[in-house]
Parts: sequence; C-alpha cells; structure tokens
Amino acid sequence: MKINKVAIVGGTHGNENTGVFLVNKLKNALPEYKGLKLKYLLANPMAIKNTRRFMDHDLNRSFGIKELQNIESSEYEFNRAKVINYELGPKGNPKYDFIIDMHTTTSNMGVTFIFSEINKINLQLACYLSEKNDSLNLYYHPPESKDVDSDQPYLNSISTFGLPLEVGPVPNGLLRHDVIEITEKTVRDTLEFITLLNNDSLPDFPDSLEIFQYIETILFPCDDDGNITAYIHKDLQDKDFCQLKQGDPIFYTVDNKTIYFENEFPMYPVFVNEAAYYYQDIAFSLSKKISISTHLT
Amino acid sequence: MKINKVAIVGGTHGNENTGVFLVNKLKNALPEYKGLKLKYLLANPMAIKNTRRFMDHDLNRSFGIKELQNIESSEYEFNRAKVINYELGPKGNPKYDFIIDMHTTTSNMGVTFIFSEINKINLQLACYLSEKNDSLNLYYHPPESKDVDSDQPYLNSISTFGLPLEVGPVPNGLLRHDVIEITEKTVRDTLEFITLLNNDSLPDFPDSLEIFQYIETILFPCDDDGNITAYIHKDLQDKDFCQLKQGDPIFYTVDNKTIYFENEFPMYPVFVNEAAYYYQDIAFSLSKKISISTHLT
Repeated sequence: MKINKVAIVGGTHGNENTGVFLVNKLKNALPEYKGLKLKYLLANPMAIKNTRRFMDHDLNRSFGIKELQNIESSEYEFNRAKVINYELGPKGNPKYDFIIDMHTTTSNMGVTFIFSEINKINLQLACYLSEKNDSLNLYYHPPESKDVDSDQPYLNSISTFGLPLEVGPVPNGLLRHDVIEITEKTVRDTLEFITLLNNDSLPDFPDSLEIFQYIETILFPCDDDGNITAYIHKDLQDKDFCQLKQGDPIFYTVDNKTIYFENEFPMYPVFVNEAAYYYQDIAFSLSKKISISTHLT
Repeated sequence: MKINKVAIVGGTHGNENTGVFLVNKLKNALPEYKGLKLKYLLANPMAIKNTRRFMDHDLNRSFGIKELQNIESSEYEFNRAKVINYELGPKGNPKYDFIIDMHTTTSNMGVTFIFSEINKINLQLACYLSEKNDSLNLYYHPPESKDVDSDQPYLNSISTFGLPLEVGPVPNGLLRHDVIEITEKTVRDTLEFITLLNNDSLPDFPDSLEIFQYIETILFPCDDDGNITAYIHKDLQDKDFCQLKQGDPIFYTVDNKTIYFENEFPMYPVFVNEAAYYYQDIAFSLSKKISISTHLT
C-alpha cells in the first residue's frame, strides 16, 4: 500500500505550544516532502487562543463514532471534532491516510510514540523511529474493549495509520528549544519513513520490539469531599518507564505518611504527574514491558 | 518592633497548586506558631477552581492604590483585591504585619525570596533564610519610580514586611513533592525568624549580602502580527542566576538562526521562559549581582 496524503496536526490541546509552533513553522518551511501531499492543521484554535487544554471538553476524547454522529451536541470541541472529521476523514474512510498529532506532557515521557492499534505499518514505523532515536519509548494503549473494531475517541483514530506523539517533560504554555528540536526531528523522520515505505525501500528491522502495554490507571487518594490527600512521592516523580517494585514509595500524604506500591509484580509507570489529568484525579498509569513480533502480515 | 499577626497566602495565581495545597495543609497542621496569630488565605478562589492564573486580570498586579480606590472596576481580580485589602490591610496601615505569599514558576528559579523594598527586617530575613538554605536566591525588584514611596501592585505590598516566595521550576497545575517540601520548610523557617525577631534573639548576620537587582525586561522577537519568531535558546534555558556574557546564545529563530547576547557587561538572567509572561511577550529579565550592607537602621 502507498500513503500519499499526510496530515500534520498541532494544538489538539491548546496549551501544548510545541505543536502549534511547529505547524506554523513547517507549513512554510516544508509545504511538501518528496511528493507527499502534506496538510497542516491547528486542531483547537479557540483553546490555542486561550492557552487552555480545551474549552468545554477534551478534543482528543471527542472522536468516537457516537460523538461524531450526534449533531445536536453544543460543546465547542464536539463541533470542532466534526469539522476535523469532514476535513481529514471521515473516520473509517479518510481522505488522509496518515495523521501525525504532536502533543507534549508535563510527565517525563521523553519521546513516546503511543499506538492504540498494532498493525504492520505502525510497527515498522516504531522500528524505524527507534533506530533514529535510541531513547524512543513505545507505548501501547489498547482499546477499552477487546473487540478488535472497538472505537477510539482520539483525533488519530480518524485514520488507520499515524503517529500520536508525546514529548516531555515540558510545562504547558511555553516553548522549549530541546522539545521543539526533537519533535521536529521525529516528524521529519516519520515523513522519510513514509517515502521509504511507498518506495518499498524500508531497511530490515529486528524480529521483535519491546513495548510498554497499558494495564491500569492509578488515582490519587482523595477525601470524602473529593480533595486530593496525597501527591506523587519524590522517588516516583520523573520515573516514567522505570521499573516500580513492591515496596517502592508512590504517594506522600498531607499528614506526612508514605504510601508504598503493593503490587506483587513489577510494573512500569507512565504519565506520572501529568497536570492535565488532575481534574480526573489520575496520578499515573501502570504498564508492563512486553516483547512483540514485528512479523505481522 | 514586634510582629504579631502573619498572613500566609496561597493561590494568588490559581494554577500554582503548591501554595493552595500548603494553605489547606497548614491551616490544620499549624493553626498558630509560638504565640503568633496566623491567618491562612486562598487569594483567588475562582482562578483556583478553574486552574487558571487569573480570570480577568493578574491578581498580583491589582494592589496599586489607584486600583484599590476605584470601586467602579468590574474585573473579578480588582474586586477580589479590595476584599483582601479589607481583610489583611488596609494597605499602609495593615491589620497583618507580615504576609507570606507562596508562588511557583516554570523558570529554574530554585527558591527565590523576591523583595521590592530593602528594609532592615527584609534583609535580616534574607540573611536568616540564606543560612537555612545555601541555595536561596535573593532578587530585588525595585519600584518602577525612584520615588521611595512609589506604589507597588503586588499583594505583598499591603504590608511593609513579608516574603514573596517563588519556587521552581514546576509546571502549572500540578504538585511536586520536592517543591512542596522546600516551600513548607521556608515558610516554617520564616515563622521561626519572626519569633526570634520578636524576642530579640536573632543570631549575628554577615555584614553584607549578595543580591540580584532587576535591571531590564527582554522581550521575545516578534513579527509584524505580534507572533513570537524566536524562543529561548537551549543554552539559556534553565540558566536563571547564571552569568550571561556578550556572545552567549539567547534566542533561536523560526528560520533556525541563533541570536546572541550583545550586552558589553555580563548580566544574570532571571525568570527565563516563565509561561505566565508569554502573553506579554516577556522572555526573561536581566539582573546585576550586587553586594549590599546589612547594617540598615
């Protein structure tokens, strides 16, 4: 198969300035790439203007089939999602074969390629990017349901192939040179991958790949009024993708007590202390490290 | 003189979670301190609820005499400032002798005591806190006007004495264990200082103190439409209070050029890449390092 049209998206969250900056930079500096048709898009212009993640609802949770079909919804992001779906989609039969969606995080996630679907092209891209960047992390968040056609709410779910990219740590609302640099490099490496794929010129890849697979979400301890009563312990802070063992500190409470990890089996925390998840009381997620074959057909 | 009543304030900026957390924690854990009357205050409850710096106007720029006197103003923060001024002030003749205002910053400011007035008690406190914390930074931002009675717009300006505290780097909208810990320690050290001051039991201090004095504000380069065309160079990122010499990189442009520091004399940058200052296009400030006598009368 050939990928001809690629959408490069920034500002899906309006306070993640890196993607916004790179859309504005690259649409002039890189209007096309070796024959690929590129489309640049600022996904959430109102949130960008207000330097907020979203106005009414998280745009990157607004692309479920049900939400896209409900034309009665009043929220800004549910409407914006439909506009983007008209432009890049429709979901399931999209005009754009491949979507790069540039995100940042306050967590120490380094450069992380998140994929919610394991298919041959996603795995080849993971291999290719891993060779270009030793410290690339691969994070697999499977659909909630075990149904293989299970629906996803992410902007990237409009097309089958793509790169949802997370880079951090970086505070919201600002630009960091190092974060811009590595994000731009990863976007350019991805475009090069697509041209190699189109020309049947991909290099040989290893037989297997190490990825982190999402297992569960860990919430902050809260009191009866819903207020957080403990925060991430300093020993866990910034330790995304580092092994967490039984007995390791995870939280520190308002009354100065340490809470320890009780899981019998070691796990790997991800999205530790992401600011955007506080409103849902999400402290971090747990993943397991698995090896998967790259020989999908 | 004796200081009897101390106000401990958090959430003057609603997305700086550390101060909010510590007000809620300490009002229970530390309702008084060795006879000192303590008042805890969440300064901007609407902004805290929305995890935003402010709703209509920066609360910490709303305490000028002119703004406090104008009862016609509609903005949330101008009204909130008046409420706080009734409660802790009135400015010039306050009910509270000393205000601790806890802030955080996305800049690598470490623990910084900002003082906008050099007086004996502020200098003694600076000496005391410096002995408790080797890496404490002292930053003096003099009033805009040379008039000694020049007005200040900060919450702290309600009282003559106080500790406007900045701790960073930390992203907005989250809690970090290390930042909470050092902020709480500095608050407790300050309360101990006040009791020693009240009992004439302060230790001897060195004859002079090294402080960083604000000189000027450096703006981001912008195009004709007001869009930022360069960001902080990675060599300057996180280098608050480090010497900046002629020829050192300061910005990196959208068309991949480095902009260098042209000042003939070395300076010390502060508030490098603070997210909250982007809307005013402020990139960083410059300060000079000076030594001042601690023997004020």
